[in-house]
Amino acid sequence: MAGNTFGQSLAVTTFGESHGPAIGCVIDGCPPGIPLAEDDFDHDLARRATGRTRHTSQRREEDRVEILSGVYQGLTTGTPIALLIRNTDARSKDYGAIAERFRPGHADFTYWRKYGHRDPRGGGRSSARETTVRVAAGVIAKRFLERQYGTRVRACLRQVGPIRAAQTDWDFVESTPLFWPEPSSLEQLEAFLDGLRKSGDSIGALVEVEAAPVPVGLGEPVYGKLDAELAAALMSINAVKAVEIGDGLAVVEQRGSQHRDQISRDGFASNHAGGILGGISSGQPVVARIALKPTSSILIPGNTLDVHGEPVEVVTKGRHDPCVGIRAIPIAEAMMALVLADQVLRHRAQNADVVDPGPVLASEGHDKAG
Amino acid sequence: MAGNTFGQSLAVTTFGESHGPAIGCVIDGCPPGIPLAEDDFDHDLARRATGRTRHTSQRREEDRVEILSGVYQGLTTGTPIALLIRNTDARSKDYGAIAERFRPGHADFTYWRKYGHRDPRGGGRSSARETTVRVAAGVIAKRFLERQYGTRVRACLRQVGPIRAAQTDWDFVESTPLFWPEPSSLEQLEAFLDGLRKSGDSIGALVEVEAAPVPVGLGEPVYGKLDAELAAALMSINAVKAVEIGDGLAVVEQRGSQHRDQISRDGFASNHAGGILGGISSGQPVVARIALKPTSSILIPGNTLDVHGEPVEVVTKGRHDPCVGIRAIPIAEAMMALVLADQVLRHRAQNADVVDPGPVLASEGHDKAG
Amino acid sequence: MAGNTFGQSLAVTTFGESHGPAIGCVIDGCPPGIPLAEDDFDHDLARRATGRTRHTSQRREEDRVEILSGVYQGLTTGTPIALLIRNTDARSKDYGAIAERFRPGHADFTYWRKYGHRDPRGGGRSSARETTVRVAAGVIAKRFLERQYGTRVRACLRQVGPIRAAQTDWDFVESTPLFWPEPSSLEQLEAFLDGLRKSGDSIGALVEVEAAPVPVGLGEPVYGKLDAELAAALMSINAVKAVEIGDGLAVVEQRGSQHRDQISRDGFASNHAGGILGGISSGQPVVARIALKPTSSILIPGNTLDVHGEPVEVVTKGRHDPCVGIRAIPIAEAMMALVLADQVLRHRAQNADVVDPGPVLASEGHDKAG
Amino acid sequence: MAGNTFGQSLAVTTFGESHGPAIGCVIDGCPPGIPLAEDDFDHDLARRATGRTRHTSQRREEDRVEILSGVYQGLTTGTPIALLIRNTDARSKDYGAIAERFRPGHADFTYWRKYGHRDPRGGGRSSARETTVRVAAGVIAKRFLERQYGTRVRACLRQVGPIRAAQTDWDFVESTPLFWPEPSSLEQLEAFLDGLRKSGDSIGALVEVEAAPVPVGLGEPVYGKLDAELAAALMSINAVKAVEIGDGLAVVEQRGSQHRDQISRDGFASNHAGGILGGISSGQPVVARIALKPTSSILIPGNTLDVHGEPVEVVTKGRHDPCVGIRAIPIAEAMMALVLADQVLRHRAQNADVVDPGPVLASEGHDKAG
Repeated sequence: MAGNTFGQSLAVTTFGESHGPAIGCVIDGCPPGIPLAEDDFDHDLARRATGRTRHTSQRREEDRVEILSGVYQGLTTGTPIALLIRNTDARSKDYGAIAERFRPGHADFTYWRKYGHRDPRGGGRSSARETTVRVAAGVIAKRFLERQYGTRVRACLRQVGPIRAAQTDWDFVESTPLFWPEPSSLEQLEAFLDGLRKSGDSIGALVEVEAAPVPVGLGEPVYGKLDAELAAALMSINAVKAVEIGDGLAVVEQRGSQHRDQISRDGFASNHAGGILGGISSGQPVVARIALKPTSSILIPGNTLDVHGEPVEVVTKGRHDPCVGIRAIPIAEAMMALVLADQVLRHRAQNADVVDPGPVLASEGHDKAG
Repeated sequence: MAGNTFGQSLAVTTFGESHGPAIGCVIDGCPPGIPLAEDDFDHDLARRATGRTRHTSQRREEDRVEILSGVYQGLTTGTPIALLIRNTDARSKDYGAIAERFRPGHADFTYWRKYGHRDPRGGGRSSARETTVRVAAGVIAKRFLERQYGTRVRACLRQVGPIRAAQTDWDFVESTPLFWPEPSSLEQLEAFLDGLRKSGDSIGALVEVEAAPVPVGLGEPVYGKLDAELAAALMSINAVKAVEIGDGLAVVEQRGSQHRDQISRDGFASNHAGGILGGISSGQPVVARIALKPTSSILIPGNTLDVHGEPVEVVTKGRHDPCVGIRAIPIAEAMMALVLADQVLRHRAQNADVVDPGPVLASEGHDKAG
Repeated sequence: MAGNTFGQSLAVTTFGESHGPAIGCVIDGCPPGIPLAEDDFDHDLARRATGRTRHTSQRREEDRVEILSGVYQGLTTGTPIALLIRNTDARSKDYGAIAERFRPGHADFTYWRKYGHRDPRGGGRSSARETTVRVAAGVIAKRFLERQYGTRVRACLRQVGPIRAAQTDWDFVESTPLFWPEPSSLEQLEAFLDGLRKSGDSIGALVEVEAAPVPVGLGEPVYGKLDAELAAALMSINAVKAVEIGDGLAVVEQRGSQHRDQISRDGFASNHAGGILGGISSGQPVVARIALKPTSSILIPGNTLDVHGEPVEVVTKGRHDPCVGIRAIPIAEAMMALVLADQVLRHRAQNADVVDPGPVLASEGHDKAG
Repeated sequence: MAGNTFGQSLAVTTFGESHGPAIGCVIDGCPPGIPLAEDDFDHDLARRATGRTRHTSQRREEDRVEILSGVYQGLTTGTPIALLIRNTDARSKDYGAIAERFRPGHADFTYWRKYGHRDPRGGGRSSARETTVRVAAGVIAKRFLERQYGTRVRACLRQVGPIRAAQTDWDFVESTPLFWPEPSSLEQLEAFLDGLRKSGDSIGALVEVEAAPVPVGLGEPVYGKLDAELAAALMSINAVKAVEIGDGLAVVEQRGSQHRDQISRDGFASNHAGGILGGISSGQPVVARIALKPTSSILIPGNTLDVHGEPVEVVTKGRHDPCVGIRAIPIAEAMMALVLADQVLRHRAQNADVVDPGPVLASEGHDKAG
C-alpha cells in the first residue's frame, strides 16, 4: 500500500496538490445503504475553511464537493466513493518567488531531495490543502458511526501558546470560529492572536478530540491497536509533533495507584486511559490530544539555502494562518472518525459471531442494529 | 493485513502469548547477504531482560533466539526470517487467581469482551512478553541501517516520575541497567525507585530514542509519513500513552520564528523538527520520545469486577516492574530501527533512479554502497 | 486494502460506474521524473474504444483523460497521479427496463444480494467501462518499463470461437481493429463475426499478452510470485475465466523431459515456462493467455428472475460487443504492465544492493540506468 | 505486505526452507472460539504426505504440527495462531552435487540471480515443502467454513497426461492415494504411472477443486474479486501454470446463449460460471481447476549452466514425485478454503448490516449463526 492510502477495511486514498487542478479522495469499503448527498459535506468543510475569522488565512476557499461515484439514488452502494474538489482560488504568483528556495520548517527541502522534482506552488502535495478531502471523507465515517452507535466525534482547542483552557464547554466550542472551549478566556485568546498577527509571527496549539459513546472491542493487537492507529492518523496531519492518548505525557509523573481506572458496577471510576486498554476500546470515551507546531510561513525573514546551495533569505508573504491549530479541529475529528469506522468493520470481520460475555458497563456504545 | 503485522517492504509479524509454548516473529522482505547468527540477538535481549537490577521484575528470562529460516551459511537469503523463543520460566500459578477478574489498567476486560475467550496467563497476548521478539527483529533492522548508512539507533530514560535528566551522556547510558543518561542524578533516581518498590506502587517514565546519521528522503506523503509511522510503531509498545517528535508537546508554546530550523551551508541551525519535515527525513538526527504509564500491576489493592460482573478486589502479586520504562529502551530502539529500515526499502523502490539534486548538508547519512 | 486497489509499491485505485458522472483512478508510488501529458493516453484509449469496427459496440466513447495531480511541468512528481474521465455518452434509458431483473451471466444478482442496493445503469460498477482507467494507468506503467528496460508489452487475439491463429505477425496485429495476428485467417474471422452479429449471439476469445525484454528477478516468493500476481490481475478483467502462463493448460499432457527449458550459453533453449521460474522472471519473454467468456448481453431472450423472485424474460438491447475479447487487448497489456512495474519497484526495494552474480543470458532485459 | 503473506482479514504468513530447521506459518485474524487441537492437522497432512503410494516421492515425512500460540483450552483466542513443523528427514547430501548448477525448469537460476545468495538444499524456499504449512492453515479455514455454512472444500485429479476422468465419484476419490475420481479408469492410470516411473520421466496433471455450499456475496469488486484472488492463490502453488474458473478455457469456443447460466425459481439452470458472477459468489458451488506442470526433477539428463556460466549436465537423483499433481490435492483445497474464509470475513466487515433483499436460491450456503 503506497503512502497516500490509509485504513484497511475502510480505506481512504487522497490525491491533489495545493495549486493543481483539483484535490480529491477515494473511500473504499464503505458499507452500502448510507444516505449521502453533496450538501452533506458543506458543514464540516465550512468549519475547516479559511476566512471565517481574522485569525485564519484570508485565502477564500469556497469548496464544493462533487460525488463522482459510489452513491446511487442518495444511498451509498458499497463501491468506491470518489469525491472531487476543484481548486479555484489558487494564486500561483504568491509562490513563484520561493520556488527555488527552501522555506525553513517546510517540506520544500525534503521533497526536493527525495524526488528530484517537485510542484512548489503553495507547497504542492505537502500543503494542508490536502486535509480538505480528509475532512470530506471524515463526514462519511462520522455518519456511519452516528448511525451505528450514536457516536459523536468532536474536537476543540485546549491551548494556544500560553493560553490554556481549564474547562470544556462543548456547546460554546461551536459558537465561535476559534473552537475555544472556555468562554471566560476567549477574550484573552483573541487579544493574544491579534498581537501575534501584528508581529508577523505564528504560534503552536493543543487540540483535543473525543469520541463517545464508543463500543467495547475496537482495535487489534498488537500493531493494529486502536491507539497506535490513532497515533499514526493524527501524526499524519500537517504540523502535528505530538500525540497523546488519555492522560498522555502526564503519565510520566503518575503512580500506578493513581493512573489505573478502577471498575465498579457503575462503570470505570475515571478515564486516565483515554478509553483504550491494551490497544482495544474499553467503551469509555476515546480521548486524544495533538500538539501542532507554529507554522513556519511567517513575515519574519529567515535564513536558508536555494536549490543551488546558496544562502538566501526567505519571507512568506502568502495568506497563512498564524495558528494552524484552529483549522485542525475538523481534521482531527475526521481522522479519529475514519480510524474508528475502519476498526468497527475490522472488528466485526473477525468477531461477528462472538456472543458478548459481559459485563456491560454504563457508558458503552451499543450497535443499534444488534 | 491483520493486526499482528507491521511494515510494508520490511514486514514483521509476531505471535505468541506470555505463558504459551513460545513467542516468535517472521521478518519478511529483509535484503539478502546480511551476516546473521543466533548470538547476534543476545546483546539486545539482555538489555531488555528482567532481573538485571533490583528495579525490574525478578522473573528470570534467559531468552535464546533460534533462527528457523531465511539464513544460510551465516547470511540472510532474502526469504522470510523466522525467529523462535521458547517460554521457559512461565509460572502459571502466579496468575491463576486473577483469571476471572479484570485487573484495572490492564487489557483483561477489553480482550474478554472483544473475543469472548482469552488466555489470561500472564496477560496472554497483551503481555509485554511479546516485545521480546520486536527487540530481536530490531537487531536485524539495526544491522541493516548500520551497514547501509552507519546509522546508530539508541535510546535512554529522560524522566522517571519527578526525576528528570537535564543532560545526555550517551556513554554513561549503557553503563548502568537503568539506561539513565546523567551521572549526577543517578543516585537520586535509585533512591526514588527504592522507595517506590517498598511502597508497592509503580511510576511512569519518559524515554528518548534517536537515530543518526539518517539519509534524506525517508517517508512517504501523506499517510506513510515517517513521523506517522514512528508514532504508530512507538504507540504500539505496551504502556505508551504519548509520542513526541522533535520538540513534541513543547511546540504548543513556541512561536514560528523560534521553532523553524534555519538552514545554512553548515546545515540546519537547530533540530526542533526532530529530523522530519513534511513527513520526510531531513538528514538530521531523527528524535522521538515516548511516555510510558506506570504499570497497573501493583501490590496496592484495587477495585474491579469479575467476569460475572461482581465487584472484587485485585492485588497483583506476580513479579512486575515498578517502572516499565526501563526495559522499554531496547524496544523503542527496535521499533524506530524497523520503521527506518522499512522506509529505506520503500524509498528506493520508488526513487532509486532519482539523481540527487543537492544541496547536501553536513550531518546527512550517505548510502555506503552508493 | 479494500477491493478496488491493486499493486503494492505501485498501487492503482479505480472508481466509477458506467453511467455515473465519471470514472477515474489514482496511481500511487509512481517514480518521479517520467514525462507525462494528457495526450499520452489517447493511443491506448483509442485501441480500447468502441465503434472502431462493426464488430464492437457502437456506443461512442470519446474518452479524454484529465490529469488532476501528480504531474508538474510535464514530469511526474512522485505524488499520486489522479486521472479523470467524464462519462459523456451514457444513455440511461437503454437500461431502465432491466433495473429490476437479473441478466443471466451478469453481476446483477450478486451485487444485489451482496449490497442490498446497487446502481443498475449499464452494469454500474461491474461494467467493463471501469477497465478504461486501467488502460490509462497501464500507459504509465508501460512508459516506465520502456524507459527502464526497453520492455514492450503487447497483446493479440489468438482464438475466437472455432477460429484459431496459428502464427503471430505482430506488425499485422495493429493494422486491423481486431488485433488479429494472422493475415491469412482474417477474412475467415470477419465472416464468422458477421454471422454471429446477425444471429444476435456472442462468442468467447483467447487473448495472448507478452512482455519482452524483461529483467531477471521480478517476483516475490511465495504469494507475491510474478505468475500469481499476473493471474489475479488478468482474472480481474471482466469476462476472464482462465489464465495461462507459458504453455498453460497444455502442460497437463507434457512430460518433464519435454517441458523443462534447458539452458546453454546462448540462453534458454525454449520458453515453455513463459518466462517465470519459481515465481520469478527468468529474463525470457513473459507470456500469458486469458480466456474471455462470450458476453451474456445478447439479443436472444433468456430466463431469469426479477428482484421480487418472479420469473421473467430478459433481452439485452443495449449496444454491446459480440466478442469482448477484441477490446480486451489493451486491457490485458495494461494489467501485465502494471504488475511488472510494481514488481520492478518491489524488487529493487529489497535487492538494490545485490551484486548480480551472473551468468547473464542473451534475451534478458537490462536496467538502462544501471 | 511482503511476498510471503496472503489474505487480508484472515492473513497467512509462511516461512521455512526445505532442509532448514523447520517450516511454519502464522495465521492472523482467525475468529475466536473455534475448537482446534494438534491432532486436527493430521488428516490433511497425511493426504499430502509422500510415501503413501509408489507413485509419490519415497521421502518419509512424518510431519507433526505444534501449535505455538493462539489457542487456549482447546479454542482459538483470536490472536495469531503459529504452527511449527520441524524438518526431520532432510538428507542434504542428496542435493550437495547440484548446489552450483541450475536445474532446468527449477527456481535455482532465478533465486540465484535475484538474491545473489540462496539456500540450494532441496530447493530451499522454492521447494514444495512450503505447501505443507498451507495445508495446515487450510485445515483451520475449512473448519471455519464448515461451522459457518456447512461448506465442504474438496479436490480430485481430473487428468494425468493422456488419461482423463470423464466422471466424478467423490466417494471414490478418497479411497485411493491418487485422488482419482473414476473407478473405471484407475487401472489405466496406475499402469501409465508405472511406465512413467520406469522411464525416469514425469507428467503434468489437472486438478479440480470445489466448494459447496457457498453463501452469496463473497468477493470484492474489482481487484478483490473472488475469482481473481482464487487465481492468485492457486497459481502460487508450485508447478501450477494455468487456472480455470467454471468452464475455464472452454469458454473460448462457447456462445453467449450457451454459456450464461439462466435462473429460475429452482435456482441456476447450470454452472458454467463456476459459482462466481462479477467477481462475487452466486451461491452455486465454486469450481476451479489448475494445471500442474511435470516436475523437472527427473532421471533423464538435461543441459544447463553452472553458477560460473559453464555448460554442465544435470540429473536429479533425489526422491521426487513423477506427478506432482497427486499431492497437490489438499494444497488446492487449502488455498481455496483460505481465500473463501478471508472473503467471508471481509464481506461481513462491510456488509454485516445489509438486510438480504432476496430472492434466495436453492443451493446457497446459509450462515448457521444468522
